[in-house]
Amino acid sequence: MARKKHKRKSKIGLAPGTLIFTGQQKMEKAVFSVLIYNENGVREIIPKDLDEVVHLIDSTKETLWVNIDGIHDENIIESICSKLLVHKLSMEDILSVGQRPKIDEFDNYIHLVLKMVMLNSADEIEDEQISFIHHKNILISFQEKTGDVFDGVRKRIIEGKGFIRKRGSDYLLYALVDSVVDHYFLILEALGEKIETLETELLLNPGESVLAKLHHLRRETLDLRRSVYPLREVISRFEKIDDTILNPDVRVFIRDLYDHTIQVIETIEVLRESASGLLDLYMNSVSNRMNEIMKVLTIMASIFIPLTFIAGVYGMNFSHMPELEYKYGYFVVWGVMVIVFLIMMIYFKRKKWL
Amino acid sequence: MARKKHKRKSKIGLAPGTLIFTGQQKMEKAVFSVLIYNENGVREIIPKDLDEVVHLIDSTKETLWVNIDGIHDENIIESICSKLLVHKLSMEDILSVGQRPKIDEFDNYIHLVLKMVMLNSADEIEDEQISFIHHKNILISFQEKTGDVFDGVRKRIIEGKGFIRKRGSDYLLYALVDSVVDHYFLILEALGEKIETLETELLLNPGESVLAKLHHLRRETLDLRRSVYPLREVISRFEKIDDTILNPDVRVFIRDLYDHTIQVIETIEVLRESASGLLDLYMNSVSNRMNEIMKVLTIMASIFIPLTFIAGVYGMNFSHMPELEYKYGYFVVWGVMVIVFLIMMIYFKRKKWL
Amino acid sequence: MARKKHKRKSKIGLAPGTLIFTGQQKMEKAVFSVLIYNENGVREIIPKDLDEVVHLIDSTKETLWVNIDGIHDENIIESICSKLLVHKLSMEDILSVGQRPKIDEFDNYIHLVLKMVMLNSADEIEDEQISFIHHKNILISFQEKTGDVFDGVRKRIIEGKGFIRKRGSDYLLYALVDSVVDHYFLILEALGEKIETLETELLLNPGESVLAKLHHLRRETLDLRRSVYPLREVISRFEKIDDTILNPDVRVFIRDLYDHTIQVIETIEVLRESASGLLDLYMNSVSNRMNEIMKVLTIMASIFIPLTFIAGVYGMNFSHMPELEYKYGYFVVWGVMVIVFLIMMIYFKRKKWL
Amino acid sequence: MARKKHKRKSKIGLAPGTLIFTGQQKMEKAVFSVLIYNENGVREIIPKDLDEVVHLIDSTKETLWVNIDGIHDENIIESICSKLLVHKLSMEDILSVGQRPKIDEFDNYIHLVLKMVMLNSADEIEDEQISFIHHKNILISFQEKTGDVFDGVRKRIIEGKGFIRKRGSDYLLYALVDSVVDHYFLILEALGEKIETLETELLLNPGESVLAKLHHLRRETLDLRRSVYPLREVISRFEKIDDTILNPDVRVFIRDLYDHTIQVIETIEVLRESASGLLDLYMNSVSNRMNEIMKVLTIMASIFIPLTFIAGVYGMNFSHMPELEYKYGYFVVWGVMVIVFLIMMIYFKRKKWL
Amino acid sequence: MARKKHKRKSKIGLAPGTLIFTGQQKMEKAVFSVLIYNENGVREIIPKDLDEVVHLIDSTKETLWVNIDGIHDENIIESICSKLLVHKLSMEDILSVGQRPKIDEFDNYIHLVLKMVMLNSADEIEDEQISFIHHKNILISFQEKTGDVFDGVRKRIIEGKGFIRKRGSDYLLYALVDSVVDHYFLILEALGEKIETLETELLLNPGESVLAKLHHLRRETLDLRRSVYPLREVISRFEKIDDTILNPDVRVFIRDLYDHTIQVIETIEVLRESASGLLDLYMNSVSNRMNEIMKVLTIMASIFIPLTFIAGVYGMNFSHMPELEYKYGYFVVWGVMVIVFLIMMIYFKRKKWL
Repeated sequence: MARKKHKRKSKIGLAPGTLIFTGQQKMEKAVFSVLIYNENGVREIIPKDLDEVVHLIDSTKETLWVNIDGIHDENIIESICSKLLVHKLSMEDILSVGQRPKIDEFDNYIHLVLKMVMLNSADEIEDEQISFIHHKNILISFQEKTGDVFDGVRKRIIEGKGFIRKRGSDYLLYALVDSVVDHYFLILEALGEKIETLETELLLNPGESVLAKLHHLRRETLDLRRSVYPLREVISRFEKIDDTILNPDVRVFIRDLYDHTIQVIETIEVLRESASGLLDLYMNSVSNRMNEIMKVLTIMASIFIPLTFIAGVYGMNFSHMPELEYKYGYFVVWGVMVIVFLIMMIYFKRKKWL
Repeated sequence: MARKKHKRKSKIGLAPGTLIFTGQQKMEKAVFSVLIYNENGVREIIPKDLDEVVHLIDSTKETLWVNIDGIHDENIIESICSKLLVHKLSMEDILSVGQRPKIDEFDNYIHLVLKMVMLNSADEIEDEQISFIHHKNILISFQEKTGDVFDGVRKRIIEGKGFIRKRGSDYLLYALVDSVVDHYFLILEALGEKIETLETELLLNPGESVLAKLHHLRRETLDLRRSVYPLREVISRFEKIDDTILNPDVRVFIRDLYDHTIQVIETIEVLRESASGLLDLYMNSVSNRMNEIMKVLTIMASIFIPLTFIAGVYGMNFSHMPELEYKYGYFVVWGVMVIVFLIMMIYFKRKKWL
Repeated sequence: MARKKHKRKSKIGLAPGTLIFTGQQKMEKAVFSVLIYNENGVREIIPKDLDEVVHLIDSTKETLWVNIDGIHDENIIESICSKLLVHKLSMEDILSVGQRPKIDEFDNYIHLVLKMVMLNSADEIEDEQISFIHHKNILISFQEKTGDVFDGVRKRIIEGKGFIRKRGSDYLLYALVDSVVDHYFLILEALGEKIETLETELLLNPGESVLAKLHHLRRETLDLRRSVYPLREVISRFEKIDDTILNPDVRVFIRDLYDHTIQVIETIEVLRESASGLLDLYMNSVSNRMNEIMKVLTIMASIFIPLTFIAGVYGMNFSHMPELEYKYGYFVVWGVMVIVFLIMMIYFKRKKWL
Repeated sequence: MARKKHKRKSKIGLAPGTLIFTGQQKMEKAVFSVLIYNENGVREIIPKDLDEVVHLIDSTKETLWVNIDGIHDENIIESICSKLLVHKLSMEDILSVGQRPKIDEFDNYIHLVLKMVMLNSADEIEDEQISFIHHKNILISFQEKTGDVFDGVRKRIIEGKGFIRKRGSDYLLYALVDSVVDHYFLILEALGEKIETLETELLLNPGESVLAKLHHLRRETLDLRRSVYPLREVISRFEKIDDTILNPDVRVFIRDLYDHTIQVIETIEVLRESASGLLDLYMNSVSNRMNEIMKVLTIMASIFIPLTFIAGVYGMNFSHMPELEYKYGYFVVWGVMVIVFLIMMIYFKRKKWL
Repeated sequence: MARKKHKRKSKIGLAPGTLIFTGQQKMEKAVFSVLIYNENGVREIIPKDLDEVVHLIDSTKETLWVNIDGIHDENIIESICSKLLVHKLSMEDILSVGQRPKIDEFDNYIHLVLKMVMLNSADEIEDEQISFIHHKNILISFQEKTGDVFDGVRKRIIEGKGFIRKRGSDYLLYALVDSVVDHYFLILEALGEKIETLETELLLNPGESVLAKLHHLRRETLDLRRSVYPLREVISRFEKIDDTILNPDVRVFIRDLYDHTIQVIETIEVLRESASGLLDLYMNSVSNRMNEIMKVLTIMASIFIPLTFIAGVYGMNFSHMPELEYKYGYFVVWGVMVIVFLIMMIYFKRKKWL
């Protein structure tokens, strides 16, 4: 996960509720897209400016979904949120992209924060903060970057597939959260494949590069877990939200979503344990190779050092060395050396080092 | 466990409740088998087609058990489930073979999902998803593959053994779940034997192949645990199901089943700890062998390197080397070398390296 | 712990409540012993056959304790249990010796299962399943093997020591369970002494045999823990049993028993951590010895390899080597070699390798 | 974290509630600063002496914040606290700087203890105890050292920014605690950067110094965790304080503060796991380098030891060695040596050691 | 911690409530000391015999504290306890010195068991069991050995310092428990200093002795943890004791005591983690030294083995070796050897091994 630096420091000392975007500042303007629908029909609107959005919020009686791509403009967030009487702290949270997933219930609205996770071009995991404000028939979603995770839901609304148009903004909120959670499975599969690739690589060619990748993978899993873990509680509290806001009918779906979340978390745990298992495997195979290296060294040295010694003895220049004069001395020494060699070989065979 | 790829990806972006089978697609048709029984008698029927099944569901007042082998045909699942007013999400779960074990209570039915675990021809653990829909006097079981795990129960019904015919569909559900849980013990015993075999192998011949097997075993245990762990909660909630659905009489049996589940989970934990213990043992025995190898090298080198040096000294060609002229020089040098050799031997004896 | 193979497999596919003994089949007949007592007196009876036992159960108004050594005869278990209207599942559990400790409350009786742990002749830990059926004034205890763990209680009853005769069958149940738990302390002390012996052995002579023993010990602790751990919950639920069955007076004793159980479990945890600590110590001392071995090798090689090189140089046979002709050449070379030797020695001294 | 020695020992044997400062004694006098404000205006006062402070406490009806820098003077603490009827134990806790974070509710006041964490000049983490006494409209804060962590809040009050002046002393307490918690993020970022620096260093040049730094870092994380962990419960209980003391309006802010605390704790956990991951990486890279070193040694020794042996053989001085007389003997031996060399090279290539 | 052998075995088979002292038997008589006090005055009495103590218990209306040093005399314990109608099981627990800390509430009294921890002459941690029986205005404390941990409290009563004389026996119980808990901090500081000493030693001279000390330290921490851990629950239940026994006023002090207990436990956890950290550091520094040793060996061998080979080649005695006749042959060989030497040096420099 590319570790983004959030401008946390710049906020220290400021009053709570001070609105400062803590992500990476951008030049592009925020993009709005609005869907208004009920059982009978659907209208898609690309508002020209903020005023038009505010006007739609005022006037619409049907389900209204405003999606905002880009949260780096504090004014936009403030205008829209003030319209819905959203608490300063919620506004601050929408702008602070380093939040952990959470759900806050206020008297008049629900505020839900999620982490969207995706693979970037370098095949690394990146996260993005997505916030939702749910207020009666209105749902506002805030995305850090332009993405396509909500396209499936948008299409279902426009094409009138399934029963999404027959239900209200609470089901819409569920559907959007569900599409985010569904997306995790993609990342988990990508990670799972990475681990399998690493395992193959590790068995074939266990070098430093595998170790670095393994280390990287563990950190990615750690970061991912951190994004997803709080989700369990968020969805669990989402399910328990008051009946006046949440249709009991929708609750069944959230229960299902909760099961998916548990599945995501369990899969992450399995990935973590797999990565740990790979590290053990790596360490053990390093030890094994070391053993093999040492065996080769020991065998070579143990065989040839004594032989060299024998040769050295008869290379001495003493004037009186009886063996040297002996006619077959040279061949006897060769014989001795062969015997020593064979003894060593048998010894190593017995030790199963050969 | 042969890691099956579930078509999770293909579902992303679809509406919740969309019915798509996520397992491996097959050509064979799904196979139905029906048992209708009460205290007095039993009828076994192999329905020709779906219509006949639906007709039986409509007309039977006795306990009706429909078993469906093969869930790759979405239409069949939908037709039968719609008949019983089963929720779209339950249908989706029956078809999504990557579910974790769970129990869902709806107003009119119970939906229970389990993982059946078996050994395949390559002696590897495979799992299969089994779903149950329990609706009044009707029990429908959905199996991914044709298997024989329910044969024992079927036989007991047909032969009228035990009191199974005297009880209703709730006891039947218990009996089927019980036969699945009983099956886990087989797998656990197989794993336990694998560990014992590995332990023997490890003590006799600790090489890379043992390490690979150990790694494989740990992953199998991990996968198995993942299939079984959620069962604890499932059975616990099964026991607490409403009296109107579950006969208090049957509850005693489910409590017993719960005890078995705990036993399964505990045995898996013991297997995991045993596997970890083996890994420790492996690592330590690798270290020990390394020590032994190094000892041999050190002893050989420490003894012969100094001796070779001595021989080297008297191999020098200086024109003036008094010892060389000395008549017994050669023998004195041999004496020195023997003394050096003995000193080293005593030193190593003291160190207990010999 | 000698891992007994329970005939789990043979039960798969059978109806719940089918009575099959899963332990090791034996030839001897089961042995009964009966004690009938109240505050005023005590009678000890060795019944000739099952009928006499059944008759006693029917006719006795005082506290009646029937102890059965040997549970491999399914008929005996069934006859006695049927007499007391014991559920089929309880009978099955009495016969299935692979049960985990548990307590089951039924309307008319309590069923309690424990693991008795003892040392066999090979100094290994063995366990034995002990079941109790408590029904009004009657207590029936089922033992797998003939043992003497209940002798203390039997003696107290016969000799009228303490207040055991003044209390009913509930206190008797407590006293028997207490004697089983007390027995654990013996095993724990034996294990504790084994660990201390191992520690001494490990510090004096850390070889492969210590490692094997340590591995064995860890598995024993693991097995023991598995037998004892569920006891915590069993005793806790025992304490909370209904007042109509359990005299409030006896509850104080069970609370005390609970404290003992916690102490047993804590001691097992300490043993486990001690064993892990020993493993760490072992690994570290293996590393240390390796270091020492390598030091010896390095010192010997680093000193003599350069010296041998110098000797080798002057063993060359070039026709023109000025030093060779030099009168004191040989002595100068010796001087150089001594200097090299001293430099190496100082270097190693500085490194604290000597 | 510079481990301060608290004078714990000097307190042993004294009565509870005995007032002794346990931090490092100093010479400077304690410094007071007072802010009195309500919605309409603000007064800043630097009291000359203790009496003036006591007089202000008596006479002020608006929100009164007394900040005391320096708690080494027991008399000052006792005078002020007695004025507000603070319990002896609270006074003792204010003076005992080794407290863990906690919140105590008394009938008439709240006592809150925090750990302020900062980097000292040597870039090490230091902590400081901060206590708050909240009594009706009065808030008294006690700091061990003169610091500037409250400057942001002071400025907001004086400049009338935000809504701080519109709310009472309960919001002030929240604002001060919030500024302390905000400060943790600074430390966490500093630690995070240290870890990243260490990771780079470790990959480039993994020596003993990295290990020492890593060890130091782990201890810092451990100490930090110890300071922060209890905060979770403190803030959670702070949120649940009685409505008569805590304005429901302020509760929303404390809930937000709680989320920040969780985030701090999670970040510390991630730092810990990162540090553990680095240690694993370090150990593995040490093993890898060892492997590399051993490979070089093995290759050099395995190639040249046999060759030296061959040369040694023909350096022997036997009077009868046929090869020596052979005209091309020397070149044949060179040929043999080249072949041996090539065989070894091919062997090592195959093993992928080259 | 000097592991005392408790005579557990001797108790097996005996009736619960049998009074046998399980500690080390001694010859000295038990020593009594009595304090009788109320707000107005205090009397200190050293009773001659047991009868005088019993008489005081009967006749005193003020707060009465009886301290008994030495619990090896079962008769004394039984006489006093019977006087206060203490349950047989409580008496047994007072005498069984292997108890874990606990609190038992009976109808008429509270029974509290603690572990006092102290350093013995060999600087090892020893524990001692302290029991309290609190019955209306009477507090009886039982100590295994004569110690001075209660001297501070005794002095405060006699000198009338603090408010101890103004409060009853419940505050006295608190004060005594508090003095025991305070004592833990001494031990913790001693352990903390040991760890710091070990760390320094480990960095300077990491040998086997450090390892043994570290192992010893870990076991001490483990034993200490076992003595202190149950205290958390004991104090927590102490705080919740019925108002009729515990003055609400005293409850505030117990809450403070609870905080201290948590602090003790947290400190032990930190000590444990520090010890683990040291072990990691130790293992890593051992690996590092191994690396260094291997580097020296590899450098020496890699440089001189090839050089020795070259010298060996020209030590061969072939009759036809052209280089030998060449006038500058010897110097050319020297040149080659220097070049080889330099190449190796550059290679090792590049590898950063030099």
